[in-house]
Amino acid sequence: MKRLFLAFAALPLLAAAPAPEKSALAPSEIVAAAPAADWVRIAPSDLMVMELAPDLKGRGRRVVIQLMPPPFSQGWVGNIRKLVAASWYDGVSVNRVQDNYVTQWGDAEGEDPKKAKKLPEGLIQVPEPEYLTPVRYLMLPSSQGTAHLNWPNPWPVMPRDNYAAANAFWKGWPVAGMRGDGTLGETELPKDRPNLLWPVHCYGMVGVGRGLSPDTGTGVELYTVIGHAPRHLDRNIALVGRVIEGIEHLSSLPRGTEALGFYATPEERTPILSMRMGDEVKGLPSFEFLSTESGSFLRYADARANRRDAFFNVPAGGADICNVPVPVRRAKG
Amino acid sequence: MKRLFLAFAALPLLAAAPAPEKSALAPSEIVAAAPAADWVRIAPSDLMVMELAPDLKGRGRRVVIQLMPPPFSQGWVGNIRKLVAASWYDGVSVNRVQDNYVTQWGDAEGEDPKKAKKLPEGLIQVPEPEYLTPVRYLMLPSSQGTAHLNWPNPWPVMPRDNYAAANAFWKGWPVAGMRGDGTLGETELPKDRPNLLWPVHCYGMVGVGRGLSPDTGTGVELYTVIGHAPRHLDRNIALVGRVIEGIEHLSSLPRGTEALGFYATPEERTPILSMRMGDEVKGLPSFEFLSTESGSFLRYADARANRRDAFFNVPAGGADICNVPVPVRRAKG
Repeated sequence: MKRLFLAFAALPLLAAAPAPEKSALAPSEIVAAAPAADWVRIAPSDLMVMELAPDLKGRGRRVVIQLMPPPFSQGWVGNIRKLVAASWYDGVSVNRVQDNYVTQWGDAEGEDPKKAKKLPEGLIQVPEPEYLTPVRYLMLPSSQGTAHLNWPNPWPVMPRDNYAAANAFWKGWPVAGMRGDGTLGETELPKDRPNLLWPVHCYGMVGVGRGLSPDTGTGVELYTVIGHAPRHLDRNIALVGRVIEGIEHLSSLPRGTEALGFYATPEERTPILSMRMGDEVKGLPSFEFLSTESGSFLRYADARANRRDAFFNVPAGGADICNVPVPVRRAKG
Repeated sequence: MKRLFLAFAALPLLAAAPAPEKSALAPSEIVAAAPAADWVRIAPSDLMVMELAPDLKGRGRRVVIQLMPPPFSQGWVGNIRKLVAASWYDGVSVNRVQDNYVTQWGDAEGEDPKKAKKLPEGLIQVPEPEYLTPVRYLMLPSSQGTAHLNWPNPWPVMPRDNYAAANAFWKGWPVAGMRGDGTLGETELPKDRPNLLWPVHCYGMVGVGRGLSPDTGTGVELYTVIGHAPRHLDRNIALVGRVIEGIEHLSSLPRGTEALGFYATPEERTPILSMRMGDEVKGLPSFEFLSTESGSFLRYADARANRRDAFFNVPAGGADICNVPVPVRRAKG
């Protein structure tokens, strides 16, 4: 595992962070008003474009997935790039849709060695420790800001997480972490050994299906979250990206009626026509996300936790990290 | 508002609660093994049966909703009972499906006084304070147990909530609460004034659409949650029940393409053929939920927070209340 010069801050340090202004705008209004400088362009080479078979009315169904940046899950991301380069996903299908959980796609015959689709060369079996990423020093400015959105209110916005010692946004992604000794304690994080970070299972995140441990999956089975964040999967499965456009084509599919939401018959599956990297797709729009290190994002996250726009009578006073989805849009200009 | 003899316990009291055994069973296995005595039959008169128009393949789409018991939201529940008794919902439609948020149904022409469907007599405008329910003494045994599922592990299962001072399960429903002084502080709750409880916006919960304050909605617009729990709606909108069967008929509908997920054309709406109370529907199965005061539920909730079954390498160490859905099934025997 690579070690990065990142780590959690002790809370007292955070008190020095400036408080963002409290906005009566809706979160969507804050996002719409964010200056161009607060948006980060996504490289087309970090996008995958999945074309599903047309719907019953003949309309195309395109799903755009952003792959996770280093240092997270890069072994699996590398496999997936090889699978796309080999056009391996072309012709596989969506085989499982479990309500309030996941939509999963891959080779429906993958369990049968005689029928399974041949894999390209060079896929690796990533070891389980790669579910976690060691970090050493604090370089989480959005976490600093986020933790003090309500300052001097003693209730910071996202301090509470049932699944980790801390959580934050890092370069546009929701991440969680714990102390390097493997505990989830709340006391100050020790500096003598790296702490551990991992991406979290929010709505729309894309993960790697696997068998029982020590299998970690290769990337031939992928799923996306279509319900309440199944955070119990964190640290147990690799997350490799997120759907940034077209999630509705996966979340509105008919639910499978077999165990775990698998379809009962092959006819119910949705074929995947192709999966290509974004830089191979002519005419693909550019996409950008709101920098989670920007002031706009801090105001947005604060507004998600404290709705002050006209419809709301009472601000919640907080939010869980998956209720603060990072804004992503087609790039302007 | 009615005052009940319920309140939060101070944490030290909870330490005396016995620890449930730690199970290596999956949550579904614990539920399947629960004895008959741990299940609570739901009165058919507390169920609403909504029949949507058949799908494109001609298959029926039935949604069964359990209404919330006293003391929660009974003004709105009373209105809804009147609307059902008047067959008012027959012929209205699903008009809004917003991805990762809500599916909403009602009178598509309700905003236009000339075209709006005539309402039955006797609907009341419920005042805003009814979003909250005052409680006085502790009678939350599931909360006691839940708070100590991991005892003597210092991390209880669901102590952390970004949206409330405490949360618990009460007679089969997820609820949250805060101190009677209106704050969300974490210190011991005072005994000299009632504390406040409210139901929470988990997946599948059914709420009452409304306009701007002081409107609280009558029940002519209803929605259900089809995404990550939008807990910021807690205390801002009345919750009146939950979908206990057929949620997939609402969660898998095509998403609307207009603002807030409204459909662009009337043809996209899904007609509601009828809505009837359960005791008026011949042949309706009986339903039952797993008592949240039972040992089986404590083991289930513990297993949701600490998966020890074969697939999982690492137990999460906690869960948020909406990631512990209360088991509901067709009654056996």
